[in-house]
Amino acid sequence: MRIGVIGAGALGLYYGAMLQRSGQDVHFLLRRDYQAICQTGLTVSSVNGDFHLPQVNAYLDAAQIGPVDLVLVGLKTFANRQLVKLVAPLLGPETSILTLQNGLGNEELLAEAFGAERVLGGIAFLCSNRGEPGEVKHLGEGRIRLGEFSGGLGPRSQQLTEIYVAAGVPCEAVSDLRRVRWEKLVWNIPFNGLSALLGKDVTELLTHQPTRQLIEQLMQEVIAAANRQPLEEPIDATPFIQQMIEMTDQMDHYQPSMMIDRREGRPLELAAIYAKPLQLAATAEIEMPRTEMLHKLLSIGENN
Amino acid sequence: MRIGVIGAGALGLYYGAMLQRSGQDVHFLLRRDYQAICQTGLTVSSVNGDFHLPQVNAYLDAAQIGPVDLVLVGLKTFANRQLVKLVAPLLGPETSILTLQNGLGNEELLAEAFGAERVLGGIAFLCSNRGEPGEVKHLGEGRIRLGEFSGGLGPRSQQLTEIYVAAGVPCEAVSDLRRVRWEKLVWNIPFNGLSALLGKDVTELLTHQPTRQLIEQLMQEVIAAANRQPLEEPIDATPFIQQMIEMTDQMDHYQPSMMIDRREGRPLELAAIYAKPLQLAATAEIEMPRTEMLHKLLSIGENN
Repeated sequence: MRIGVIGAGALGLYYGAMLQRSGQDVHFLLRRDYQAICQTGLTVSSVNGDFHLPQVNAYLDAAQIGPVDLVLVGLKTFANRQLVKLVAPLLGPETSILTLQNGLGNEELLAEAFGAERVLGGIAFLCSNRGEPGEVKHLGEGRIRLGEFSGGLGPRSQQLTEIYVAAGVPCEAVSDLRRVRWEKLVWNIPFNGLSALLGKDVTELLTHQPTRQLIEQLMQEVIAAANRQPLEEPIDATPFIQQMIEMTDQMDHYQPSMMIDRREGRPLELAAIYAKPLQLAATAEIEMPRTEMLHKLLSIGENN
Repeated sequence: MRIGVIGAGALGLYYGAMLQRSGQDVHFLLRRDYQAICQTGLTVSSVNGDFHLPQVNAYLDAAQIGPVDLVLVGLKTFANRQLVKLVAPLLGPETSILTLQNGLGNEELLAEAFGAERVLGGIAFLCSNRGEPGEVKHLGEGRIRLGEFSGGLGPRSQQLTEIYVAAGVPCEAVSDLRRVRWEKLVWNIPFNGLSALLGKDVTELLTHQPTRQLIEQLMQEVIAAANRQPLEEPIDATPFIQQMIEMTDQMDHYQPSMMIDRREGRPLELAAIYAKPLQLAATAEIEMPRTEMLHKLLSIGENN
């Protein structure tokens, strides 16, 4: 399968590399890592074993990639104004688009531009960071849950799942993409925002009892809002929160992407992770006072 | 009147200096500023005109001060464990104690140790910072409202008011000390905490619409909790919030004390300004979700 990776940050580089290693024909649109990858290839330093791809199809211009079977989108959502322009040159009549971006609103943006039938979304539970140019660090996790933007379990999502699984990435197709998006927000809303705001990693946040309790309160708010959305099945708050917390307790001082974005002076993904969910909660007339406060606290100094 | 100042930070130094300039017999318990003040006296750089006191009664040991008519307490509340020990040597049979400290619980502490009849409390609306040793900067405001811990308008609070007014400090005696304490919290809870958490001064916080709105939401919570306390009259939320915001809009990039405490690595006054009000709100079965969240966010990295 010919695959184009748009937005080759930690997530795009990692999954693209895994797919290439398994024999897929992967093409990366790069910026920061272009020169290093052209010269020495791409290195994945992974908890599951390091590997190196000496030969990588690297591009600075999406038009040079041309049509692919699958566009894999890993762009930071704060760059979504460029998304349509970057994806368009990769589309042939049968091209599918899978966005693994954070938060809400990404499938909608792609569907509006290119048609809902092309679009799939997925959530990646991946602990990864960029290293030096030409390197990506895989710190843990990595599983993907993906589904059709239009809902239901089609043969296409099944096929993509098999491609990921064959590449060593645990992957599952789901019929209710909306639900898994909200499930991911249950993690992202507390951990991304609090780590960025306080400059503390997940272990520091969970070790301090007041912030651990606040994380649970934020998770409660997100689940309450999620369960007012048209989900196939509601999220069962108590066991789900317990599972999220236990999983994060296992992470050793992991720094969420938003913590790194803030430290390095990049914009934060506030629209996708906070503004859009808050807007849907308001429409459903459910209050998220702590989430709203966190959004306000994060917004000072940001442009969005 | 013989007056002892315990806790000679910006507030204690400023009011002590004003009282001395007006002819009162003031004695300062000092630490950081002791040497500078012994050598060159105390300088007040004030928006109302600078002045210098070449001769100041300065002490490193409270026992050296001996009994006074009035103990003026300006100690940071995070040092309250030392309060009783510091005040005790200054007490004669008729000594009154006036605490101008932030937050709740200070009068109670003094009353328990020395008897409620000795204790007055006051809130100071003062913008001041410490400068170099031997200097205090008065940036604006300065008015005091004081009252008997046991309630009511006695001759003593009237007499103290006159002493302050004669010293050029706007001062008013109030019968309901509890109410003015909560009124002050309406300012302190949003501005102290948010400035410390975000490293932004009051002008920056008010210029950014989301934090301006959050400030109003926090003020609403504090007033709702205040109005569940046994106040003589409830606080009328809308005009009071408007007045607080308008007053603060006039302050030019003022940095609240807690912002400076955090930047300089000192403990924060979390018990008096957050924990105690939250505890009283919980007893009155009223929720303060944003205040509670702010307290949690500030507590990480603190010992209390």
